[in-house]
Amino acid sequence: MKLNCDLGESFGAWKMPVEDAIMPLIDQANIACGYHGGDPTAIKQALALAKRYDVEVGAHPAYPDLQGFGRRSLAMSADEIIAMLHYQISALHGMAICENTAITFVKPHGALYNDMLSCSNVRHAVMDAVGQFNAASLTLVMQAHPESKHFEDEANERGLSVRFEAFADRCYTDEGALVSRRKQHAVLSYEKALEQSERLISEGCVITENGNKLSLNVDTLCVHGDTADAIRMATAIRQLITQSSTTA
Amino acid sequence: MKLNCDLGESFGAWKMPVEDAIMPLIDQANIACGYHGGDPTAIKQALALAKRYDVEVGAHPAYPDLQGFGRRSLAMSADEIIAMLHYQISALHGMAICENTAITFVKPHGALYNDMLSCSNVRHAVMDAVGQFNAASLTLVMQAHPESKHFEDEANERGLSVRFEAFADRCYTDEGALVSRRKQHAVLSYEKALEQSERLISEGCVITENGNKLSLNVDTLCVHGDTADAIRMATAIRQLITQSSTTA
Amino acid sequence: MKLNCDLGESFGAWKMPVEDAIMPLIDQANIACGYHGGDPTAIKQALALAKRYDVEVGAHPAYPDLQGFGRRSLAMSADEIIAMLHYQISALHGMAICENTAITFVKPHGALYNDMLSCSNVRHAVMDAVGQFNAASLTLVMQAHPESKHFEDEANERGLSVRFEAFADRCYTDEGALVSRRKQHAVLSYEKALEQSERLISEGCVITENGNKLSLNVDTLCVHGDTADAIRMATAIRQLITQSSTTA
Amino acid sequence: MKLNCDLGESFGAWKMPVEDAIMPLIDQANIACGYHGGDPTAIKQALALAKRYDVEVGAHPAYPDLQGFGRRSLAMSADEIIAMLHYQISALHGMAICENTAITFVKPHGALYNDMLSCSNVRHAVMDAVGQFNAASLTLVMQAHPESKHFEDEANERGLSVRFEAFADRCYTDEGALVSRRKQHAVLSYEKALEQSERLISEGCVITENGNKLSLNVDTLCVHGDTADAIRMATAIRQLITQSSTTA
Repeated sequence: MKLNCDLGESFGAWKMPVEDAIMPLIDQANIACGYHGGDPTAIKQALALAKRYDVEVGAHPAYPDLQGFGRRSLAMSADEIIAMLHYQISALHGMAICENTAITFVKPHGALYNDMLSCSNVRHAVMDAVGQFNAASLTLVMQAHPESKHFEDEANERGLSVRFEAFADRCYTDEGALVSRRKQHAVLSYEKALEQSERLISEGCVITENGNKLSLNVDTLCVHGDTADAIRMATAIRQLITQSSTTA
Repeated sequence: MKLNCDLGESFGAWKMPVEDAIMPLIDQANIACGYHGGDPTAIKQALALAKRYDVEVGAHPAYPDLQGFGRRSLAMSADEIIAMLHYQISALHGMAICENTAITFVKPHGALYNDMLSCSNVRHAVMDAVGQFNAASLTLVMQAHPESKHFEDEANERGLSVRFEAFADRCYTDEGALVSRRKQHAVLSYEKALEQSERLISEGCVITENGNKLSLNVDTLCVHGDTADAIRMATAIRQLITQSSTTA
Repeated sequence: MKLNCDLGESFGAWKMPVEDAIMPLIDQANIACGYHGGDPTAIKQALALAKRYDVEVGAHPAYPDLQGFGRRSLAMSADEIIAMLHYQISALHGMAICENTAITFVKPHGALYNDMLSCSNVRHAVMDAVGQFNAASLTLVMQAHPESKHFEDEANERGLSVRFEAFADRCYTDEGALVSRRKQHAVLSYEKALEQSERLISEGCVITENGNKLSLNVDTLCVHGDTADAIRMATAIRQLITQSSTTA
Repeated sequence: MKLNCDLGESFGAWKMPVEDAIMPLIDQANIACGYHGGDPTAIKQALALAKRYDVEVGAHPAYPDLQGFGRRSLAMSADEIIAMLHYQISALHGMAICENTAITFVKPHGALYNDMLSCSNVRHAVMDAVGQFNAASLTLVMQAHPESKHFEDEANERGLSVRFEAFADRCYTDEGALVSRRKQHAVLSYEKALEQSERLISEGCVITENGNKLSLNVDTLCVHGDTADAIRMATAIRQLITQSSTTA
């Protein structure tokens, strides 16, 4: 089990505060590409920081919606999605080389990430775009889901490998979706998030909003970097993962 | 002598009209990177078109000013310039690979291009940025100028080679600057532009606004793609270049 | 019957070409507000031109999507829609006063306009926003539709009056929607568009894609300003309207 | 002496944190207009908050440079400046009316504010724009300066009144400019800022970086809302102003 975090999301005068402190705790940094956050200076700093702490880096592309932080679906055609992903992935790919590192994966952000589960047109466009990016051999990061096997098959058909991700602090529905942020119980408390992380690491499952056990095939856990508890939670989950791998 | 043109500058609903017709006539396409024009779809199309006609491609980065089409100076620090150039060059570098081609040069656009002549901070930041971009071995395109040798030395110190450009249809001052677009005689008529092109090709000089002869060491001629006469002029200059190289 | 056109949509170096020629032919100018097109200079020029030809002006707000020209749905909350409409309408309202004229209506643009028919949340948010704009007494322009009466009731409940619009050159479905632009027959030929305009003016109906007669309660006809035939079509429809009102 | 603060500068996911706490302490809120910060939702919230605490509101327009937070000079023509100011002021004017309040002044932001002192073209364009905005009778806020009288004359010629502002926590040069933020001593410590505020309130002068006394004719003091000490400093200066007016 790996630990990942969305980083490089500062924009101009607006700074995401915990970047320096969280980088040493994680395995993988998903770095913004300028479309939902991440101006070139912020991207460069995040890449240099990841390099310093030997953290794996990937592109974190989004719909072009700075004001909505990439969290609002935008009705783009498949061709538009492919072109804008090539643009964003290219930006990160080249800038990573400038910082003597290299991107190894792509994790779509926000609404684009969510739309991949609910809309096959979007999912296939994303898979096509990443599969066609022949400047690097990239892995696609998707949300771990009961239908993971089907998604993996679709990706493999495009010569693409997939890594599945679960969220430490988000509540799940029985169907494996994240409970909408509009609902009270969408985000778990610190204690509940630790509990969920432990269950994912040791048992490969979560307890859904209705109290049911849901198995999820998970490769990497996402911690958020923009909450008050971010560092405390990343530290605790880091410890859980280390213990687990020592035991195993 | 080569012929080049700024392309890929369409943005969304706004289309630059002559791209398809001018591409077969030129040697080098300077492709917008999204900061003054060029959305990902327009960039992709320009790269594919250049590939089809075997035209050399380069990145054409600009200050972030879509509304001003990159023609207004923006007071950026050297670090900001370097980061935004790495972002834009990377975007073109990776997208070119996606279209089975590769960028070989960088030509700054608009105010950024002009500021390189008048402001050493900007010029050095651009040279540093292009020199540091180690994902490809890129040539820097600058305006041909009486001080060309000095600029070339500065670039060479950074391990960077330079290609010098003159404008077919722009009037020059005695000092080798372009006459400001605010002045009546800034842009030459079709006939005068052809005359200037011929003089640059055969004699390596221009006649300035004051009627003086000014020698310029020129590797490539720029034709504009957004004027009514664009295709006619590109065709005529293409012919001049072909005749010249046949004769020589 | 009135004639209207979307104007002020130039952005920086990108110019919409027919503005000067079409303004004298129309009754109402729907002026872009900067979110899908229309930089402040273009807006100011369109307002001054409308003032010169005594053309009624309205705000033409859109989703924030310059690259997609406002033609792509964006999943905004009702509060976000209301705030962004107040921003855009305010910009036009104040700038109109600066040009010694005044806006009298609001016509949503592109995907926002279409979403009003298919999504009641969007429609109610737009109606709330325009109804709350108490700096001017504004009319809302909506697409003429078999359900027009229902929409009018919803608007009236908010103290808002509605004006209904039909399109001269767009083909209609039996349900009163516009045939999607992705279909071949979405846009009518010049001859068919004139025929449809005449039928709307004299009989208040259109012939749908399936050959059925559909009654539409129409106050104003929209002609597009960005096609080759724009001026010819506007001139012909202007004549039809004049004849009709003289006869009547 | 009044107290003012720049507010409404949040943008999407990026929040300026102290707005709720500082609003009750100030007399005047300079509200961002979307060009350097301030999306429509943030503007609406700031206006509503100002209305609740009976704080005077004004427009705080900037160069179009979200990434640079409006702190970088952009070479705009006078016509471009006037059009973009009418756009931004209009947006605030109309949105204020929607929140049952009204703007009474315009304070340019960042580089635009600074360029007014050093460049008469910019200053006159700003004065022309505010003077022409006849939807409201607006006061222009400028930096208090030894040449204040000259600036006031220029404004008065345009039928415009001026209010002069000083900064609580910024160090001044002997010439009355702010010490550049690139220098160590540009921003005063909490104690020094309080001392400077007291001196401005009681004696109408500051001590410059070279230890000289510089008289400044000041109507309003600006406190920053984005520093750790913001609330503490605003509270202390509020108290100084109240004591002073009680004594006087």
